[in-house]
Amino acid sequence: MKIAIMGFGTVGTGLEEILYKKKKDLLKNNFDIKIERILIKNKYKERNPHDKTLIFTDNFDEILNSPVDTVIDVTSNLEETYERIVKLMKSGKNIVTANKAVVSKYFEDLNDLARENKVYFAYEASVAGAIPIIHPLMEEVFFNDIYEISGILNGTSNYILSKMEREGLDYDEVLKEAQELGYAEADPSADVGGLDAMRKIRILSSLAYRAKISEDEIFTFGINTVKKSDFDFAKDLGCSIRLLGKSSLSDGKINISVMPRFLRDDFFANTFDGTNAIKVHGENFKSYELKGPGAGKLETADAIMRDLLRILAKREIKTFYHAENSYPVENNLEKKYYLRCQKVSDDLKNLILSEKIVGEDHHLITKNLNLEKLIHALGDLESIFIAEIEEEI
Amino acid sequence: MKIAIMGFGTVGTGLEEILYKKKKDLLKNNFDIKIERILIKNKYKERNPHDKTLIFTDNFDEILNSPVDTVIDVTSNLEETYERIVKLMKSGKNIVTANKAVVSKYFEDLNDLARENKVYFAYEASVAGAIPIIHPLMEEVFFNDIYEISGILNGTSNYILSKMEREGLDYDEVLKEAQELGYAEADPSADVGGLDAMRKIRILSSLAYRAKISEDEIFTFGINTVKKSDFDFAKDLGCSIRLLGKSSLSDGKINISVMPRFLRDDFFANTFDGTNAIKVHGENFKSYELKGPGAGKLETADAIMRDLLRILAKREIKTFYHAENSYPVENNLEKKYYLRCQKVSDDLKNLILSEKIVGEDHHLITKNLNLEKLIHALGDLESIFIAEIEEEI
Repeated sequence: MKIAIMGFGTVGTGLEEILYKKKKDLLKNNFDIKIERILIKNKYKERNPHDKTLIFTDNFDEILNSPVDTVIDVTSNLEETYERIVKLMKSGKNIVTANKAVVSKYFEDLNDLARENKVYFAYEASVAGAIPIIHPLMEEVFFNDIYEISGILNGTSNYILSKMEREGLDYDEVLKEAQELGYAEADPSADVGGLDAMRKIRILSSLAYRAKISEDEIFTFGINTVKKSDFDFAKDLGCSIRLLGKSSLSDGKINISVMPRFLRDDFFANTFDGTNAIKVHGENFKSYELKGPGAGKLETADAIMRDLLRILAKREIKTFYHAENSYPVENNLEKKYYLRCQKVSDDLKNLILSEKIVGEDHHLITKNLNLEKLIHALGDLESIFIAEIEEEI
Repeated sequence: MKIAIMGFGTVGTGLEEILYKKKKDLLKNNFDIKIERILIKNKYKERNPHDKTLIFTDNFDEILNSPVDTVIDVTSNLEETYERIVKLMKSGKNIVTANKAVVSKYFEDLNDLARENKVYFAYEASVAGAIPIIHPLMEEVFFNDIYEISGILNGTSNYILSKMEREGLDYDEVLKEAQELGYAEADPSADVGGLDAMRKIRILSSLAYRAKISEDEIFTFGINTVKKSDFDFAKDLGCSIRLLGKSSLSDGKINISVMPRFLRDDFFANTFDGTNAIKVHGENFKSYELKGPGAGKLETADAIMRDLLRILAKREIKTFYHAENSYPVENNLEKKYYLRCQKVSDDLKNLILSEKIVGEDHHLITKNLNLEKLIHALGDLESIFIAEIEEEI
């Protein structure tokens, strides 16, 4: 199998490392994988691959016209990469990608295109790094009705939340440290704003319910306004705060959101630092849970290797996902919410179960209500923090 | 795909239920699975399958000579079933089995036989029910050096231990209740004696290290001598007691055992009732963890469905496992152990770090020593309980 890699950042170098170190072992088991070309942006930057004979190029057409079977995408571009993947699939090349932005936005398009062109479209690395979730879930849905899936899907946010919680620090302090240590990007907005987790819960939920869910239907609230005082409040209720992507299907309606949640659940509350955690609930059994590294060089490359081996094993069914169901997103489940704000609007007033005022901050707990109602009542309030309360309080 | 099922107990009826209820959905996705024959022992017992047209037989030759592609084994026989599987494979039939006794004892034989006869040998259901562990692990080993695997692999034992711990009850009391509720068998010896967990850690470890490990090389100590006082002692150290199967590979040597362990680790300590939990440590990442139902009607049938779909997807590589490595089992890691006994032999005396005598019982903590030394020192002591201490104390 001849492959090309698009991108040679952290994950790309990790993949090259594994392929180099495991070459003999893979060959012995008839897994013959050869890197033909690596597409990079800056041809003049010094690269230091294990295999010194590797060929780098900044010309995408060289990849498109090369005789490779499979292209690994480890870029973080959205539209440019999407267009390239389309061209590659149309020219008969399998795609393995870690690019959750592309997978989430164009999930149906790319799966359909893969089917039409009889190529593989594999994206195990796009969600939760080395945790084997995508492929088992993809098979599971044919014989088990999944009705809920939830997870800590963004390592950066979880690093910040769990560190604030354990060390009693404030947001800015922890973010700065995370950036210095490389756990958070210079521009962390996609992570702390919830966008990254939103993409992942979109992919998992579409797989689980075999239904298209548009990104803009997913209510997304990040952690970038969280304060130390929110943890104090949660702690008084015996709760931790974690950013969960969560969806469920009942009575033909989908509830889906990404937002901070107050929880006591040992599985999520005991997930610290950059770890990801996923819980799947289905008809055939109560639930199963998976936990592991959500990102990282060898961790994500490991997930790409899973996909490569599956392609080498030539599954007859090249792509499984097909959005055969259609369910409206309604967010009709009733929950209590925690809200910190500086003004309480009239709409909000009617929804308050209890209120505690500390300095300028109102810490509210709402009555049971659905998310749509909460969003409506929030109106254009600024500098707020909200969290769904998962527990009986 | 035409299949036959050997056995129609809990798991067999669960499989028939899933296949019946999901028939349309599976067909729509080109998964055409038809049950041709079901082998049962007592032809005169009343059966109540969903599909009333099903054909039952007590004649194995009818299965052997039938035109089925794949035979599902949900029996609990060891030697008889092994012989039948051999005959079926030789006649070109794929095998999907939930029978951990057969898989563990004849792992290399059956994988080799499957390879020779170009049939599939699939056993996802033999370990940890619905938790997707076997297949992801099978792929993982080609590109990630697994160096440790451990797990709560027996639901019955975990039910008893976690209930004793939480409710302060004694062993006999909980076992009796578990039997009444159907969580423990009338003869629970394979579960509480550790045999069942031993078979599962053998299967997982052989897969992980790609090496044969004979069942009789695995030191196995169950929970059937545990007392309330052991939990009191563990609690004083801040520990829970769980029965863990555990193995590791370092410096070309394998440590492997099944025994009760004192642990604080939230992942295992927070595994209650019949739940199974598995932790995998590899070179490419620190670890990943999986937790879920370890047994049950639909739970185990769910794992069989995973295998059936993989066979339908016609992987080119029909069987992955091959014992290409050879490592001696040495149990050379040094640990502290907890020991409760009524006599302290001379050999033991030299190994004691601390001792507490309550009534007739000596509760000891040993110095750091390896398992071989401990076993030697135990000699023929009777009515003892031992546990490895996983934590710093």
